[in-house]
Formats: sequence, structure tokens, C-alpha cells
Amino acid sequence: MSDPALVTIPARRGKAARVKQGQIVKVINTHGDQVVDTWAFNADDLNEFMSMEHTRPHIMKIMPAVGDAMLTNKRRPILTFIEDTSGGVHDTIISACDRYRYKFLGVEGYHDNCTDNLQAAMGELGLAAPETPCPLNLFMNIPVHADGSLSFEPPVSTAGSYVALRAEMDLVIAFSACPQDILPINGVGHLPTEAHFSVD
Amino acid sequence: MSDPALVTIPARRGKAARVKQGQIVKVINTHGDQVVDTWAFNADDLNEFMSMEHTRPHIMKIMPAVGDAMLTNKRRPILTFIEDTSGGVHDTIISACDRYRYKFLGVEGYHDNCTDNLQAAMGELGLAAPETPCPLNLFMNIPVHADGSLSFEPPVSTAGSYVALRAEMDLVIAFSACPQDILPINGVGHLPTEAHFSVD
Repeated sequence: MSDPALVTIPARRGKAARVKQGQIVKVINTHGDQVVDTWAFNADDLNEFMSMEHTRPHIMKIMPAVGDAMLTNKRRPILTFIEDTSGGVHDTIISACDRYRYKFLGVEGYHDNCTDNLQAAMGELGLAAPETPCPLNLFMNIPVHADGSLSFEPPVSTAGSYVALRAEMDLVIAFSACPQDILPINGVGHLPTEAHFSVD
Repeated sequence: MSDPALVTIPARRGKAARVKQGQIVKVINTHGDQVVDTWAFNADDLNEFMSMEHTRPHIMKIMPAVGDAMLTNKRRPILTFIEDTSGGVHDTIISACDRYRYKFLGVEGYHDNCTDNLQAAMGELGLAAPETPCPLNLFMNIPVHADGSLSFEPPVSTAGSYVALRAEMDLVIAFSACPQDILPINGVGHLPTEAHFSVD
């Protein structure tokens, strides 16, 4: 890869970009502990989008790895994992956080959240997401234990580690640097930070 | 429970019903090996519906059990598991089958599928589902292995075993007796059958 310009996903905020088929999206965990909720929509039809529940029966895994293609809700490849220096721990089973989640967690008033960040990021491109698909939560560490229980754990990724994804169609990619500061999902310090991406 | 009328979910087909808050929906695996894809929509706002990805971080399990409430995409309880004689193996991570899935599996021409069954069942009530949420796949056996891999296994349920769910709001419930006859998800004989439910 050459060295394309880095785009900032601001701490607690979203960012979206248009990507052409064949381009590589590199998502960098700049400070090492930041979960990045990730969505991808077919640029020609936003109602077709990357779907965790359609991807899992295709890859026959709970978590994608290098070589795996993520599928849309029409079961077409949209993004393929081509490189991963983060330790390979990502989540496909937890919804984007939203105002209801923070209310449940005891927050009074507004709290930044990935659901609103998705819409704000799409809005900057003059677009609107037709719904909030279950995101690909890059770097998010939700082990499924042998008894089927789940836990929220800090990322295993390190500062500067990244995932590279190849676009399999013209698409709109959207990210949210998850603003979760109550559970330790963004590290034991519970501190949301910025992250970065490039499109090359 | 009294002995309310049984409603048939025909083999390979869908069926929906209106349910009042507090009523009990009993879903019976009549012949023992049938997966029943299940959806629930808020009767007053079909855009609010039972969501697997919102339920998992609430119950902190990959699979609900007696006592667990399923949440909507607004994180409100919609159905609570109150009884389960089926062995307790259900799936929350696999999308409803659709025409794209059967094409991928090598089927030529039309194949019955749970996605179309949802719309047909809602249509019988004069309603339309706003999308196809990831279903609660009752009796479906998708183990998550220690290495994160998945497999499609026959149900562990037995003929006449059932799940009872309490409605936590006025809702529309929809079922599809999954027509999957290529993978052994409806038993080693791959034979889709009818199932039944009651609302009491």
C-alpha cells in the first residue's frame, strides 16, 4: 500500500466516506484501546448493507478473520478482511449503543452514541442510513464463554494496529469511535479516543 | 395455562397473530425437529421489534433461557421466556433464510424461505414488516465452538416440546416453519414439518 491521507474519526464521533470497488480501507486503532463500530452500504442502494447475521452462516464463524468476506443482507460480498495486525478480536453480536442503552446504564440526559453517530456521519455526505444495522465492531472484545455467557472486555489491540478491508463493491463506509465510557469496552480506563482510517 | 386453540404454522410457511400484553404464546415443536423462526413487532409501531443484537448485551448470553426478556431495538422488553421444555437450545445469530441463501446452496428456481414467509404472514393480517430483523430461531441448534467456529446441527427438542413466551406489550408475533431442506437444521432427515402455537 502507498501512504494515503489519514482521516480522523474524532473521539466519541462518527465519520463516513465513499469507497470504490477494489480500494483498501485501513482502520487504525491509533491509541490501541478504541472500539470502532463499522458499517458499509452499497453506494447504489443504501438498503443493501453489510449484515452480521448474513455473514456468520457464510463464514461459519462468530468473528471474521483475514480472508473472510463480509456479506450484505443480499448475501453479496461487500468487504473482505485482507490484513489484521490487531490481534484479531472483533465483535459481530452486539448492537450499536444508543440513547436507550445509556439510559439503562444510568446516564441522565444525552450521551454520545454510535447510533446517532452513524446518522451524523452519513448526513455529512448528504445521505441517510435506512436503519442501524448491527455493526462490525472492530477491536471490540466480547468473548462467548463455553456456557454461552458473554462479557465486556478491554480490546487486545495495540496502539497503531490496524485492519485492512478490501471493498468488493462501490460502497459508503461509516465509522463511530464508540463513546462508551461506562463499561470497559474501550480499555480499562474507560476513555474513548480518536481513531483513523485511510482509503487507498 | 388453560387449553387454548392451537394454530398451525404450516410446513414451509409462515403465520402471524396479534397478541395482547400479558398473554402467553406457546410455540410447540409438534414433530420435534422443526426450527421456528420467530419475530415480534410492537403492535402500535411496527418499526419497534424484537432485536437479537439488542437482547444479547442485556441478557449477557448468546441464547435466552427461562426468565430472560427479549428486548426491542428500543431496548424495551417485548417477550419473556417463561417455560421451555425443548432442551433450551435456540439460536440468535443466524439470519432468516432467503432466496439468496438457497441460490448460494445450489437451488435453481424458487425455494420457500423464511424471509418471504414473514412478509406473507404479516400480509395475512394486512400488515407489512418494515424489514426482516434477525429472528429468534426457536429450536435451532447452532453451537458456537471454543475456537469461534459455528456448525449447523439438528434440534435437540422432542415432539410436543414447547417454549412459552409472555407478551410484555401489545404485539404482532410472526413465525416461519423454516423450509430449510438442504442443511440438517430441521433434523437429520432434512424434512420441514408443521408446528403449532397458541395464544392464551
